[in-house]
Amino acid sequence: MLDYSLVDDIILRALKEDMPMGDITTESTVPEDETSSARLIAKEDMVVAGLEVFCRVFILLDQNIYIERYVNDGDKVKTGTVILKISGNSRAILKAERTALNLLQRMSGIATATRKFVDILEGTKAKIVDTRKTAPGLRYLDKMAVRMGGGANHRFSLSDGVLIKDNHIKASGGITAAVKRARERVPHTVKIEVETETMEQVKEALAAGADIIMLDNMKPEDMKEAVAYINGRALTEASGNITADNLAIVAKTGVDLISSGSLTHSVKAADISLKFE
Amino acid sequence: MLDYSLVDDIILRALKEDMPMGDITTESTVPEDETSSARLIAKEDMVVAGLEVFCRVFILLDQNIYIERYVNDGDKVKTGTVILKISGNSRAILKAERTALNLLQRMSGIATATRKFVDILEGTKAKIVDTRKTAPGLRYLDKMAVRMGGGANHRFSLSDGVLIKDNHIKASGGITAAVKRARERVPHTVKIEVETETMEQVKEALAAGADIIMLDNMKPEDMKEAVAYINGRALTEASGNITADNLAIVAKTGVDLISSGSLTHSVKAADISLKFE
Amino acid sequence: MLDYSLVDDIILRALKEDMPMGDITTESTVPEDETSSARLIAKEDMVVAGLEVFCRVFILLDQNIYIERYVNDGDKVKTGTVILKISGNSRAILKAERTALNLLQRMSGIATATRKFVDILEGTKAKIVDTRKTAPGLRYLDKMAVRMGGGANHRFSLSDGVLIKDNHIKASGGITAAVKRARERVPHTVKIEVETETMEQVKEALAAGADIIMLDNMKPEDMKEAVAYINGRALTEASGNITADNLAIVAKTGVDLISSGSLTHSVKAADISLKFE
Amino acid sequence: MLDYSLVDDIILRALKEDMPMGDITTESTVPEDETSSARLIAKEDMVVAGLEVFCRVFILLDQNIYIERYVNDGDKVKTGTVILKISGNSRAILKAERTALNLLQRMSGIATATRKFVDILEGTKAKIVDTRKTAPGLRYLDKMAVRMGGGANHRFSLSDGVLIKDNHIKASGGITAAVKRARERVPHTVKIEVETETMEQVKEALAAGADIIMLDNMKPEDMKEAVAYINGRALTEASGNITADNLAIVAKTGVDLISSGSLTHSVKAADISLKFE
Amino acid sequence: MLDYSLVDDIILRALKEDMPMGDITTESTVPEDETSSARLIAKEDMVVAGLEVFCRVFILLDQNIYIERYVNDGDKVKTGTVILKISGNSRAILKAERTALNLLQRMSGIATATRKFVDILEGTKAKIVDTRKTAPGLRYLDKMAVRMGGGANHRFSLSDGVLIKDNHIKASGGITAAVKRARERVPHTVKIEVETETMEQVKEALAAGADIIMLDNMKPEDMKEAVAYINGRALTEASGNITADNLAIVAKTGVDLISSGSLTHSVKAADISLKFE
Amino acid sequence: MLDYSLVDDIILRALKEDMPMGDITTESTVPEDETSSARLIAKEDMVVAGLEVFCRVFILLDQNIYIERYVNDGDKVKTGTVILKISGNSRAILKAERTALNLLQRMSGIATATRKFVDILEGTKAKIVDTRKTAPGLRYLDKMAVRMGGGANHRFSLSDGVLIKDNHIKASGGITAAVKRARERVPHTVKIEVETETMEQVKEALAAGADIIMLDNMKPEDMKEAVAYINGRALTEASGNITADNLAIVAKTGVDLISSGSLTHSVKAADISLKFE
Repeated sequence: MLDYSLVDDIILRALKEDMPMGDITTESTVPEDETSSARLIAKEDMVVAGLEVFCRVFILLDQNIYIERYVNDGDKVKTGTVILKISGNSRAILKAERTALNLLQRMSGIATATRKFVDILEGTKAKIVDTRKTAPGLRYLDKMAVRMGGGANHRFSLSDGVLIKDNHIKASGGITAAVKRARERVPHTVKIEVETETMEQVKEALAAGADIIMLDNMKPEDMKEAVAYINGRALTEASGNITADNLAIVAKTGVDLISSGSLTHSVKAADISLKFE
Repeated sequence: MLDYSLVDDIILRALKEDMPMGDITTESTVPEDETSSARLIAKEDMVVAGLEVFCRVFILLDQNIYIERYVNDGDKVKTGTVILKISGNSRAILKAERTALNLLQRMSGIATATRKFVDILEGTKAKIVDTRKTAPGLRYLDKMAVRMGGGANHRFSLSDGVLIKDNHIKASGGITAAVKRARERVPHTVKIEVETETMEQVKEALAAGADIIMLDNMKPEDMKEAVAYINGRALTEASGNITADNLAIVAKTGVDLISSGSLTHSVKAADISLKFE
Repeated sequence: MLDYSLVDDIILRALKEDMPMGDITTESTVPEDETSSARLIAKEDMVVAGLEVFCRVFILLDQNIYIERYVNDGDKVKTGTVILKISGNSRAILKAERTALNLLQRMSGIATATRKFVDILEGTKAKIVDTRKTAPGLRYLDKMAVRMGGGANHRFSLSDGVLIKDNHIKASGGITAAVKRARERVPHTVKIEVETETMEQVKEALAAGADIIMLDNMKPEDMKEAVAYINGRALTEASGNITADNLAIVAKTGVDLISSGSLTHSVKAADISLKFE
Repeated sequence: MLDYSLVDDIILRALKEDMPMGDITTESTVPEDETSSARLIAKEDMVVAGLEVFCRVFILLDQNIYIERYVNDGDKVKTGTVILKISGNSRAILKAERTALNLLQRMSGIATATRKFVDILEGTKAKIVDTRKTAPGLRYLDKMAVRMGGGANHRFSLSDGVLIKDNHIKASGGITAAVKRARERVPHTVKIEVETETMEQVKEALAAGADIIMLDNMKPEDMKEAVAYINGRALTEASGNITADNLAIVAKTGVDLISSGSLTHSVKAADISLKFE
Repeated sequence: MLDYSLVDDIILRALKEDMPMGDITTESTVPEDETSSARLIAKEDMVVAGLEVFCRVFILLDQNIYIERYVNDGDKVKTGTVILKISGNSRAILKAERTALNLLQRMSGIATATRKFVDILEGTKAKIVDTRKTAPGLRYLDKMAVRMGGGANHRFSLSDGVLIKDNHIKASGGITAAVKRARERVPHTVKIEVETETMEQVKEALAAGADIIMLDNMKPEDMKEAVAYINGRALTEASGNITADNLAIVAKTGVDLISSGSLTHSVKAADISLKFE
Repeated sequence: MLDYSLVDDIILRALKEDMPMGDITTESTVPEDETSSARLIAKEDMVVAGLEVFCRVFILLDQNIYIERYVNDGDKVKTGTVILKISGNSRAILKAERTALNLLQRMSGIATATRKFVDILEGTKAKIVDTRKTAPGLRYLDKMAVRMGGGANHRFSLSDGVLIKDNHIKASGGITAAVKRARERVPHTVKIEVETETMEQVKEALAAGADIIMLDNMKPEDMKEAVAYINGRALTEASGNITADNLAIVAKTGVDLISSGSLTHSVKAADISLKFE
């Protein structure tokens, strides 16, 4: 079940952006009452994500559009797979098509990339997590797609997680002070994470009571040492230019979490197309 | 000069998305009156795009933030270049940082990819153009970034250009009828483009008076034949899975325009970071 | 089919404007469950426009309202014609009535005026087109009404058509330069129109490759000369205080298009009333 | 002093409507830093209304625009009068021009028509008042313009005045019952008006304690009789197809108020133009 | 019948505020298709208010939620009363629960407090009325709750009632002048109220033609004197720190209206809970 | 520093709600250019909260309003204290007054109540925390006020904290399963809290790895036992009808946190008034 209170607003803005004054091609060439049906087809192997959002775009334009789904969000499909079949008023389908595809292709691209990372991590204890490096306005969907790809979410926003970075540390006069101040003032429901770059910082963060220690841009051997030192007393998160290429190496350091901005800031849209019959 | 009536709304939504209840880390660890300065640094070679938008994010949170710019939108810069220097209230800078970077990195990524295409096309008559495959809600900025990268824009939306595709043709009973109906009903300020896949369609579209003929997914030799046949009587646009790899070959067919969805649907964020001093 | 993504927002704002705190008369005097029916009657001869919008107002307040339509948008009707019959909850009908009528009467007024112009132009090659002189916030509906009256639309906004006026010409250093700069930078899907006031400007605009030449505030004989000179090499548009009185004379000059701001900036609301039974 | 909380929203929507993707003509032909100045000129005799709104449009796009005003809202000016002078960034002025003029011309048109009515009523006790027949979304400005033209406002919305019409009367079982129910349930700060068409209704409304009695579509002699009967015990309002032609006759009946929908539903835009220097 | 044009916006904002990124507990622990039913139970004696609003929250998240109501808005219920039964998708019910209860408990709290005042006033001629001291953004619902509790509404906003206070009097040069200026300029549908603190002011206000005279912070004996002096020539309103304790005494002074800000600015939420079965 | 991206929207809606069509009293009685000054005075002992929000209301209407502050948010002040002095355009001050006070009085009321709880808890280890029982649309401000009163915030929304209640437990098949599912699926930055009512549940929750254990509606002696059992292995939170009366007793059980909905669902507005000079 989609949260319409979150999704409808995104979709209606996208539709208005794509037709501030209607669809002049369709309105001038397609009869008002014509109906069509079309199949949504994967043009490459992918993890599908965003189907409910895709469908909602059509429904918001015309609640009589009928959709039969053959695939679920999170499913891995092969090139050529028919994802769903849609039928109804031709004008409505043509008007909604691009907006619906833009959302679905982005989400499926994110899910597919995430799954690739997840597959690499199989057998290790590390989990792949996203970041706040999402497309402005689309964070809810970007993060939903990461989950559909098998990944996990890092904090959603600046309001729901503490991540103490360099500047916060300097401003507070050190890691210990920063953690203490945060602990006193943020909701008790939120964990405190500290970004570290050296073993010394790791030690101070752990001593200060950090719940999560980010090992930022460390070399694998240093990460390994840090993980060993921490020894389960805090969650460990590897961060900094993680790609599919170095993922396995990073995972071997024993970290609990590996975060990657590329999942959402550098999305390759999945190739999906709507074929009319 | 940015159109604030268009941009502020995008920025304010992004800020609210990133801190629905404030920035709990910064508010608990950084004193209210502390000031900082930071330099924005390119971490790879790139075409910078979106600087005015970047700056506007900070200004909307705190109008006393001071920014000194060393680079202009559209400039090609090398790794290590200091793009600008920002100074002011530390809390404001920390709160705006991620949102501002998300916008700037996406726009610079688009501009950089576009410029790569533009460079390949140098010496040919072909122009690279974008599509409607943009991130929902960000089309204005995505298309601005394409221009900053040296590319040109295709239509902005369904309201401001006619592109007669397969379904419109079928619904109208043929290309000739479809073009005629569109010509009668759409604003006279708008050109009519027809999507074609065969020489037969090319001929019909030209005879029907199409202003622009899209050669969709055609082989280079077929495109060449079509371009020769059309012979300047309509603009020609190559379309369909154009990448940096096949771009030069397509350009050699003599088409006027080459459109590529990848510029905006599969963006690789430019690597840019804000270093505090 | 109305584009709800465009129309609902207009209607909901209008309803909120007309009852920020409810309808105190109706709520205090009409029982909650009472039902009524009413007939919508043309009180003068007119072209009806906006029926779908009219109906949508009621549906947004109460989806159980039932409406039977006897007339279509664009139909010419005589005084006394029953346009539709509406029945349902009395409170909903009374609350929506004024907002629905305000929209319908404006749109029908525009359509009726447009049709009057269209009738005058019958037998000539000239088409009547609107302008951007619409009621702020209602452009989509104003332009829809023009089409329903048989007219055509000029550009929808500053984003979807190029119209090079005096100031653009001066800033660019002449018509030739201005057209060249625009051609290089605007989407290829958009035509370029130049506003001219003298034969000299007409010649320069044509030579510069203008797609459309606006003959602004010219005398009929000068227009005729310009049209003859242009001779089909560009579309011609007559502009400047066109009224029903001088329309036939302007049309005889042979121009393709005649634009009139009065269609939308000086609307006489059509007289329509909702009679309860 | 304008209430920005009310006006900015109207202006920003209008600007976005007029340039959802920027002003492609101006951006391609006018240099970014060019400045211009222009004079706003009345092209016919009129009452000017909406100057603050006009100016705000420019300020919202560029706060450095400088405006020198020579005329105040509500002033009667002659053809040729320079209303104000504006100077600043050329692009900003060109982008805001049409939106600002659309608002100003509508408001000045309303004020001019209102003043015409006010002048006719001079020497009588009758006041001209507007209705809820305003352009959806623009009621605040439409009613402000009526005041600037010397007229008075009827209720603003269904929430702030009671007007018991036919349907309310039927639903309540008669005028007496309807007035009683309203009196019990609406805020005590609001007067109760009853719409009447016959002397019998007038008498019942007065007996029921109506504060205002609307004499709807009555003949002048009947109005006179009603006014005499009421004799100051309630305010009297003449209504129903009041035009400049029959206004004096209606006023002579002695009514307190004359309402006319035409002031706002059938606006003739005042002819005003912005001349660049 | 709720005015969705007013209420939906309030509800959707509340839902978005309570789950900007979804309900992470429910989504991770409750299966997507699970259904539940729950009973809404009064945990103390109260007047129930806001049931339609409560129900609308669920419907906006999932239109298949089914609700059976046993009680109506305005009903006085005892501890333990089952107000309604709700059944449907578990996730939807859990997500909407808190938002729906926050609205219902506030409204029922207001209605309950109002009814307490109403009961005290029984047998007197005085009516209890609210003020503009409502929770920002919730005035429509706060005032609806007052009515459901048996109270009446004072003006809704600064736009729909005239209340001349100290500052307006000073700025106008006295009560007489202030009333005169207001009478000339505000809609004739609105009554004029003057705030007074002394008998002298009462006399001037009455002589100036005030429709309503507010007796602000007067001692009971002074109020009595004022009421006697006014003797029905204007409505009288007692104001200033009215509580349940002094209400009866104030009512005995013979005033028509007693306004109390505490009804809406100091709300004690009614204790209501949703029990799952 | 206020986050304008969060606060301006709340204020602008409140202003529009309070004057959808302007302030008819002020506009008709107070000259446009008049200036005033006024002092904001505490009419009872209180903790002041919301001063920046209060000031922002005036600034959004007129940026030339000048305010001198004598007190800070969170300060405890005595009856009669002058909190600030405001001067500027009279109309702006009068229009903003009620909205600004409604926000300030609510926030100060919350802060004052919170401080009362905090004072009672002094010397114990327990912290007072709020809940999600806030006024819909005002949660950001309600929770800010709790902090200003010396309290701490519980989770902000359903998106940023996990609280496993009865229904989640049933749906998952037990506490252990529910905690496990949540741990797998929610961001690692978020703690997991389980609501318990019996020692058995406490034990299961602790064994399942809950970070926080809510002791809901338990008797003091049971809480004490639970706290002893948990012995620091999880945070403990007392919940359920906590009032000033039983607070000290609950604190003595040794719980870490005590949450109280009454802080925000049953607010007594602080008595503050703006006195003009």
